[in-house]
Amino acid sequence: HCLLFEDQKCKVVQCSWVSCRSMASKTPVGFIGLGNMGTPMARNLLKHGYPVIATDVFPESCKEFQDSGAQILDCPAEVADKADRIITMLPSSPNVIEVYTGPNGILKKVKKGTLLIDSSTIDPAVSKEMAVAAEKMGAVFMDAPVSGGVGAASLAKLTFMVGGVEEEFNAAQELLTCMGANVVYCGQVGSGQAAKICNNMLLAIGMIGTAETMNLGIRLGLDPKLLAKILNMSSGRCWSSDKYNPVPGVMEGVPSANNYQGGFGTKLMAKDLGFAQNTATSTRTPIPLGSLAHQIYRTMCAHGYSNKDFSSVFQFLREEEVQ
Amino acid sequence: HCLLFEDQKCKVVQCSWVSCRSMASKTPVGFIGLGNMGTPMARNLLKHGYPVIATDVFPESCKEFQDSGAQILDCPAEVADKADRIITMLPSSPNVIEVYTGPNGILKKVKKGTLLIDSSTIDPAVSKEMAVAAEKMGAVFMDAPVSGGVGAASLAKLTFMVGGVEEEFNAAQELLTCMGANVVYCGQVGSGQAAKICNNMLLAIGMIGTAETMNLGIRLGLDPKLLAKILNMSSGRCWSSDKYNPVPGVMEGVPSANNYQGGFGTKLMAKDLGFAQNTATSTRTPIPLGSLAHQIYRTMCAHGYSNKDFSSVFQFLREEEVQ
Amino acid sequence: HCLLFEDQKCKVVQCSWVSCRSMASKTPVGFIGLGNMGTPMARNLLKHGYPVIATDVFPESCKEFQDSGAQILDCPAEVADKADRIITMLPSSPNVIEVYTGPNGILKKVKKGTLLIDSSTIDPAVSKEMAVAAEKMGAVFMDAPVSGGVGAASLAKLTFMVGGVEEEFNAAQELLTCMGANVVYCGQVGSGQAAKICNNMLLAIGMIGTAETMNLGIRLGLDPKLLAKILNMSSGRCWSSDKYNPVPGVMEGVPSANNYQGGFGTKLMAKDLGFAQNTATSTRTPIPLGSLAHQIYRTMCAHGYSNKDFSSVFQFLREEEVQ
Amino acid sequence: HCLLFEDQKCKVVQCSWVSCRSMASKTPVGFIGLGNMGTPMARNLLKHGYPVIATDVFPESCKEFQDSGAQILDCPAEVADKADRIITMLPSSPNVIEVYTGPNGILKKVKKGTLLIDSSTIDPAVSKEMAVAAEKMGAVFMDAPVSGGVGAASLAKLTFMVGGVEEEFNAAQELLTCMGANVVYCGQVGSGQAAKICNNMLLAIGMIGTAETMNLGIRLGLDPKLLAKILNMSSGRCWSSDKYNPVPGVMEGVPSANNYQGGFGTKLMAKDLGFAQNTATSTRTPIPLGSLAHQIYRTMCAHGYSNKDFSSVFQFLREEEVQ
Repeated sequence: HCLLFEDQKCKVVQCSWVSCRSMASKTPVGFIGLGNMGTPMARNLLKHGYPVIATDVFPESCKEFQDSGAQILDCPAEVADKADRIITMLPSSPNVIEVYTGPNGILKKVKKGTLLIDSSTIDPAVSKEMAVAAEKMGAVFMDAPVSGGVGAASLAKLTFMVGGVEEEFNAAQELLTCMGANVVYCGQVGSGQAAKICNNMLLAIGMIGTAETMNLGIRLGLDPKLLAKILNMSSGRCWSSDKYNPVPGVMEGVPSANNYQGGFGTKLMAKDLGFAQNTATSTRTPIPLGSLAHQIYRTMCAHGYSNKDFSSVFQFLREEEVQ
Repeated sequence: HCLLFEDQKCKVVQCSWVSCRSMASKTPVGFIGLGNMGTPMARNLLKHGYPVIATDVFPESCKEFQDSGAQILDCPAEVADKADRIITMLPSSPNVIEVYTGPNGILKKVKKGTLLIDSSTIDPAVSKEMAVAAEKMGAVFMDAPVSGGVGAASLAKLTFMVGGVEEEFNAAQELLTCMGANVVYCGQVGSGQAAKICNNMLLAIGMIGTAETMNLGIRLGLDPKLLAKILNMSSGRCWSSDKYNPVPGVMEGVPSANNYQGGFGTKLMAKDLGFAQNTATSTRTPIPLGSLAHQIYRTMCAHGYSNKDFSSVFQFLREEEVQ
Repeated sequence: HCLLFEDQKCKVVQCSWVSCRSMASKTPVGFIGLGNMGTPMARNLLKHGYPVIATDVFPESCKEFQDSGAQILDCPAEVADKADRIITMLPSSPNVIEVYTGPNGILKKVKKGTLLIDSSTIDPAVSKEMAVAAEKMGAVFMDAPVSGGVGAASLAKLTFMVGGVEEEFNAAQELLTCMGANVVYCGQVGSGQAAKICNNMLLAIGMIGTAETMNLGIRLGLDPKLLAKILNMSSGRCWSSDKYNPVPGVMEGVPSANNYQGGFGTKLMAKDLGFAQNTATSTRTPIPLGSLAHQIYRTMCAHGYSNKDFSSVFQFLREEEVQ
Repeated sequence: HCLLFEDQKCKVVQCSWVSCRSMASKTPVGFIGLGNMGTPMARNLLKHGYPVIATDVFPESCKEFQDSGAQILDCPAEVADKADRIITMLPSSPNVIEVYTGPNGILKKVKKGTLLIDSSTIDPAVSKEMAVAAEKMGAVFMDAPVSGGVGAASLAKLTFMVGGVEEEFNAAQELLTCMGANVVYCGQVGSGQAAKICNNMLLAIGMIGTAETMNLGIRLGLDPKLLAKILNMSSGRCWSSDKYNPVPGVMEGVPSANNYQGGFGTKLMAKDLGFAQNTATSTRTPIPLGSLAHQIYRTMCAHGYSNKDFSSVFQFLREEEVQ
């Protein structure tokens, strides 16, 4: 956790002082990728007194963030020229490859000793490639994908799963604690991605399992709220049954209570399951349920569920056969 | 909960008194099926002062239980002749059919108004048939399958999921609270079985999912304890990851720490998944993961895992390919 | 094969003669179930000179068939009173149970030695029950489900898979050859159903596999006709790839060329896979692909594909994800 | 087909003459990869009068092939220096990458206009990469994976599925017809791999499906030979049921008749299914059965089936549960 505010009694004073000192003394942090997640993350760095030097391919995103007090540059290479700590938050592997190794990429102007932290969720193999490329330039690359959505990003409640050289973890942690509630060191480069992939694969299995089970129980005449209660006090309990139940009417404040809007899109889950599938294939690991979960979310994407929350698998499965 | 012993200070005195009174005043309870589960359950009835009239097809089981203070009769029909509350705890549907409707079965001599509680885990359709047959004789049948194993049975910590006419639930609860920590009313006859089937299906999915995920993470270089910790603080969390982790070395006091001995056998899980499959088919409910979980446990049964705890699916999946 | 018409030169003469003789000498055959399949089957019996005594729950069906020259009675029991060879062709297990053992059922008035042939596709367990019930009345029950659709029924090109006492096979064959091109003896009662279930399970697997494969190939840039050609000259070949290709434009005269109309409905395939699932569960046989095929057809039924040909799984899988 | 020997009347004379002429006039063909498949393929080139210049990492393989009349060089680069048509037959993607782009690789010394034909079964993405790399050097790369095993390679009965620039197909065909019975043009580079992957995925699905179906039928009391016969005359028919039946005793001359020795190893099938999985994931194509087939072969590899023929899935599934 971020320790800055821990002593509640002197919080305000201390913060003012810290803030002043840090504006004067803190070195700037680079931030590349000002999307739905990146922007609130970068804002939390500003709140903690770090000058932020940022860039993004979309001018509107840059303009908006500039108004928050950040400096905007033209491309990743220029950011690398000005900052020796850079965080990237990008949608997919090709974007990461471009931002790091492209013609205007970070590695074109990166300085020796620069700390590069990539919070994108991508193929662990790409993380490893980037780490090798960074090392050739004398820089250090760490992967630090997050769990938690836009809300958690705004509230600095993300969980970061960090992979990379252990000696650099403290330096990474200093920045990441400004943006998240948990920062977990997972091991060598790629381990952060590995941990995230594992979690999301089990999440997908638990969600589809919960949807199947609730649907079966309802068809057998059980009341959904009662069934959820029984499961949650028994061995069937999982995060999808007790914190994010996919059946409308069972819980409030979750996507199933809001027509599966918001939350974590089916398309994003399918993407993460693709990574799980790839890493399982390359390590010759059997993942029968994970693989079937992938196929189910893939099929849902093709039937109009791409942008609904991934708990909409209940809706996908429960549709009644017309006689 | 059973309130009898709640005031610890006067426990002994009260119990002696209660015991005396109950021996005098409590009407006897019939108990049929003195196996690994039935015997400790029936003992808990004795402990609560209920005279027990029992029978079983195995003379040794009867002899042993007789030494505990119970009266042993020759067959279910005779038990039905003497008791107006009868509990049955049997291994499978055919046994239940025999014990209720066979030539020496309960219904041959059941008295009007008798309460019949079946705690076996069987096909809900059989429960419904038994209820109809009982009703014809003027008796009331309820299904009340349990979750929890031999240990929970001994400690009276079982959970009972009860289906049947709601007006009779209080009468059933009076007896069941002597043997369990939770007694949940689920709805009409068969609902207890339905709830149990649902729970166990989700349990199986969560367990295989956890085993796949832990195995994949280990192959990707993650430490198993660290991975379990990350999952359990994230959305991958489930009962199988946080209370019954299938990877040896991650938790103590679970079957994976003891070569998968004890616990809940793979064969029993395969049996329960067969019920889930049957009820899903008859209600035309898609259960893709539940169905695949069934096939996996079925395959394991054929490869020497029948009597190992169902968390041994980790062992089944992790075996390394010989190059 | 039916040999009656084989000598083309004397066909008309011979048939007139046969027809005359048979009207005079052939004993009547009972036929129960005048649906889409039953009516053309029963007509083929008439064509071969058998007097037919029929019944059905729908008066219109009876009226129509009466116009073809059959005698119509009120209920199965009456048919059993008049005929000592009876064929039944019904939609599902409950109908079969009703027609045989119901209050107006065949067994109420069946004569000793009557041959009962059930061509319905039902649960093999029900076939065995009917056989036992028939035997108690001194009658013989055989199961003889068909492969082939309405067209094959009209053209007498069905395949019959027959289970029952071997000594009665010749008697059954005499009638069945009038309605089908192949009559195969499969073994004891229920074997006909077993063979049909096995065939249809493999058919479903081959069809979904073909659909997945064609779809993958198309997405990889292969021409569908070329891919079909390559598969069909290689080890990927199957009936669904070379006789009933599910991709529109690859073959003519199949449902995929006609918007998946006609053919064998997804709902019927799901029903047969339910039988496969049930028998696999009760014999503890692992059928991972068969079980998943069942779940896929079940899901399709819930998404509007019930009445489309089962090759429409290609359409179900190929839908493009909207970006 | 190879047209050289087509005029049977003058075969001997012509061949002598051709042979003489070709030794004098045919330009040499390079061949890299002298394994179980490569050696008999290269021998068939020699038989057709092509001088062969070869190399392999294993000296024994080279020595043996040298005795057949080939010239052996030290590395792929040297082969590329001497031959302007080169065939490669290697076990996996990394080998192909090494042989083409490694420090002693073909592309180090390849001449402009050289035709490079890769018959390895690899990831189509690697084929495309090699094609791009070759094009930069002014050479032409085609992928031409085979179906058929060691026996077909010896008898020149392989099927080649060829991807690449259409104008070069004739030149490739000239060589490939010496080694195979069918040479099929599939489209742009990578299409040969795509076609092979598609075929093998459907093959795997058909094989597992056949194994499940035969096993279920046997458990239901059907005779395996009879069941195979019924399937093969019905819509369940596929290559695995009618040409390569996995049940011992049903057919002769197939691996199931020889304890699953020889044939196409489970490990190789798992590898090909990995490619199918990868290409499906990258094209977002749902392949539920293909994916589950992959997981099953993966699991079998971990349970001692790696080197058994892939039809041994019958053995894997049929093992009886010990009660």
